[in-house]
Amino acid sequence: MATQTIAKLLAQGTTLQEISVKGWVRTFRANRFIALNDGSTINNLQCVVDFENFDEALLKRITTGAAIHVTGELVESQGKGQSVEIQVKALEILGDSDPETYPIQPKKHTFEFLRENAHLRTRTNTFSAVMRMCSSLSFAVHKYFNDNGFYNMHTPIITGSDAEGAGDMFRVTILDPKNPPLTEEGEVNYKEDFFGKEANLTVSGQLEAETYAMSLGKVYTFGPTFRAENSNTSRHLAEFWMIEPEVAFMDLDGNMDLAEDFLKSVLSYVLEHNREDLEFLDKRLQEHDKTLPQAERSPMHLIDKIKFVVDNNFKRVSYTEAIDILRNSKPNKKKKFNYIIEEWGADLQSEHERFLVEKHFKCPVILFDYPANIKAFYMRLNEDGKTVRAMDILFPGIGEMVGGSQREERLEVLKQKMAALNIPEEELWWYLDLRKYGTAVHSGFGLGFERLVMFATGMGNIRDVIPYPRTPQNAEF
Amino acid sequence: MATQTIAKLLAQGTTLQEISVKGWVRTFRANRFIALNDGSTINNLQCVVDFENFDEALLKRITTGAAIHVTGELVESQGKGQSVEIQVKALEILGDSDPETYPIQPKKHTFEFLRENAHLRTRTNTFSAVMRMCSSLSFAVHKYFNDNGFYNMHTPIITGSDAEGAGDMFRVTILDPKNPPLTEEGEVNYKEDFFGKEANLTVSGQLEAETYAMSLGKVYTFGPTFRAENSNTSRHLAEFWMIEPEVAFMDLDGNMDLAEDFLKSVLSYVLEHNREDLEFLDKRLQEHDKTLPQAERSPMHLIDKIKFVVDNNFKRVSYTEAIDILRNSKPNKKKKFNYIIEEWGADLQSEHERFLVEKHFKCPVILFDYPANIKAFYMRLNEDGKTVRAMDILFPGIGEMVGGSQREERLEVLKQKMAALNIPEEELWWYLDLRKYGTAVHSGFGLGFERLVMFATGMGNIRDVIPYPRTPQNAEF
Repeated sequence: MATQTIAKLLAQGTTLQEISVKGWVRTFRANRFIALNDGSTINNLQCVVDFENFDEALLKRITTGAAIHVTGELVESQGKGQSVEIQVKALEILGDSDPETYPIQPKKHTFEFLRENAHLRTRTNTFSAVMRMCSSLSFAVHKYFNDNGFYNMHTPIITGSDAEGAGDMFRVTILDPKNPPLTEEGEVNYKEDFFGKEANLTVSGQLEAETYAMSLGKVYTFGPTFRAENSNTSRHLAEFWMIEPEVAFMDLDGNMDLAEDFLKSVLSYVLEHNREDLEFLDKRLQEHDKTLPQAERSPMHLIDKIKFVVDNNFKRVSYTEAIDILRNSKPNKKKKFNYIIEEWGADLQSEHERFLVEKHFKCPVILFDYPANIKAFYMRLNEDGKTVRAMDILFPGIGEMVGGSQREERLEVLKQKMAALNIPEEELWWYLDLRKYGTAVHSGFGLGFERLVMFATGMGNIRDVIPYPRTPQNAEF
Repeated sequence: MATQTIAKLLAQGTTLQEISVKGWVRTFRANRFIALNDGSTINNLQCVVDFENFDEALLKRITTGAAIHVTGELVESQGKGQSVEIQVKALEILGDSDPETYPIQPKKHTFEFLRENAHLRTRTNTFSAVMRMCSSLSFAVHKYFNDNGFYNMHTPIITGSDAEGAGDMFRVTILDPKNPPLTEEGEVNYKEDFFGKEANLTVSGQLEAETYAMSLGKVYTFGPTFRAENSNTSRHLAEFWMIEPEVAFMDLDGNMDLAEDFLKSVLSYVLEHNREDLEFLDKRLQEHDKTLPQAERSPMHLIDKIKFVVDNNFKRVSYTEAIDILRNSKPNKKKKFNYIIEEWGADLQSEHERFLVEKHFKCPVILFDYPANIKAFYMRLNEDGKTVRAMDILFPGIGEMVGGSQREERLEVLKQKMAALNIPEEELWWYLDLRKYGTAVHSGFGLGFERLVMFATGMGNIRDVIPYPRTPQNAEF
């Protein structure tokens, strides 16, 4: 008899003659009711054991965490909380779980404790729900781009170029760490390293994605990126996954339209496909909020918040307008901001972004046309000569969700910008070639996948939305 | 007027009043016919210019590689080779392309030359077709697993563990390369490195995927993996993408069924969705084959070969049977093999795999139940005490496409195996936990994505099926 998943059995709802299920025991109460979970859904299947028909030694081995194989009849449940249950006819212990030492007890564990047991934390409701959401969001990303004529590409992870300029990089090497080969001048001789030159882990696939956009039209990457920054915050990882679409012949307005449509589409997808996980996470967040002071509680429930984003237009505001709003805002005038906004050109801090999104506009905000000197070299200079066609999308509770721009397509302007920033042309000869041969307006953006998962799950720490987080001093598992 | 993709215009087929298209000039002949491509399809759109109505200076700038914007009327084509064409009313040069220096001329380039110009090679028919196939196969992978109840997970790229044992690893570090900090004993002090210990790039996500299979049931990873091996062959990359499903409660037979069904499904997907690219690649391969001696030509055309795999059962053969076949084979008896098969226990070389697949069975072959001592520590020992529940899928022209196994689920057997191989238990405490708490039969496999793309596109060098290949002495772009 073929084994079935609990998700299918419960979705089916009808009662079946005889079924076979395998899973892990969540709880076993009154020597009679097993709550069985196999990961296919947040819901457990209730397995009813007539203890008089089973050996006592066997019943003792039905402990939290044990893997078991149950066969029996699926019948309508007499109890509350489930429509169907199994009347167990045969039960086999596949793998025991010593209740004295098993770390995942049927009680509330702190997220800190579960991070130390990240290999077992998806055996809890919260983390299994979060990781099913991760999976759905990931599929929704691929589906969105595939449905809209984008081609997926694998941009390189190891890069010989360090000109991307998005942050500190990790070095990738096979040289003897203690006694590296040296050149005659006494410097490390990277010619003897694997790639024949210094190599690093990528911080972004954008520049390579541009090469494909300028031939295939619409492309995207979705892969790991890296920052060797010593940031021990709840929003930063040393290794995270980034979604980066890049589109030929698209300007910044098109880019904003794309990013907004994309975010609404993937969030709609989980509203439709992950209802039960979302309902669980929604309740979890509400209970968690009760433990917090009023001011720190979420202004909206999780599902309402996602629906709000899906149903409302993002507010589009130029950097210049935003500076005006901030300069005249109460916290600025009363000097409540840590960084007081005094004049045009100031880089916005997280406190300013939060004010705009959470207090002033109370919805996702797209800021655009930033001062050139606080943004990257490849962003297109506006006719005013001082702003660039950049945009950031700010989300309530998250901050920057998306960063994008129209790219500088004019060879001479790009060269000047690189020269001003001491980026050698030899490093990016291929990037410059795109402006030499058939250049055109093009745009794209980057979206940190784990930030999206945080927003969609209501989880407050980015370490809890990726299976095995990499942070300073931590690469366990 | 909104710009449309050439793929949509051609698929539509009907004639439209007025349209707007942007793309790159492939050729311009007789001062009249522009072949325009925008990457959305292998097919060019013919744009007919009435040269008497256009400025001569403008016409001179319509060169191969130039980006242009064309508006005009879509009409039925009078010429051969296309059903519709544009009668151009207005033409704008978006970006020039100097025909004297543009590397991608309208002629045949060698693949070696195009690798040096990998940033422009998707402007050729062959590479745009290959990369659209890559994208389709990638989507088909996600779709297959999503449709079949698997959860996608992001296994870590940077790993603190070096016990995976699948090959040489790259070190990831931020230590001063010339004067690394040393311990009192004079060794490199990794405590001062970013992660507080030595860290490497992953060679496989399998071990972490097992942790999630043992809670979520069916999971898969699809991400980059790395080998610091000095292999300069047409089948090896230092950085490549691997697909790794892992399933709880599944044995080796189920694993073989899954791998076969998966391969047939993703190959069916491209037969259905990439017909035009496949037809182009099929013809390319036929023309290429004509330049080769008879013995080196492909025994089947590309599309026929893919259909053959989709429509026929893979042949399942135990290692022991395979050794018998090889021992009694002509090339073995006549000593034509470089490695003569003399007795049970020999590791199979590529020449033996090719003989089995291409000469003996003439179809994909699944070899299973290998000798334990030529396979990895985590594979489940059979009752005979000398073979393990491993399987490799061998494909004609490619060799090993899939490697998988049922995993050793018994704590004591696994510990003994690790001890025998000097793998410290402290390194893999979390992996051992899976056998302590609710262990169960489980299985999975790994499939190198680029090998799959090679098979489906007929490309002979793995460097030509990934945008920017990383190989010894090469990390350009």
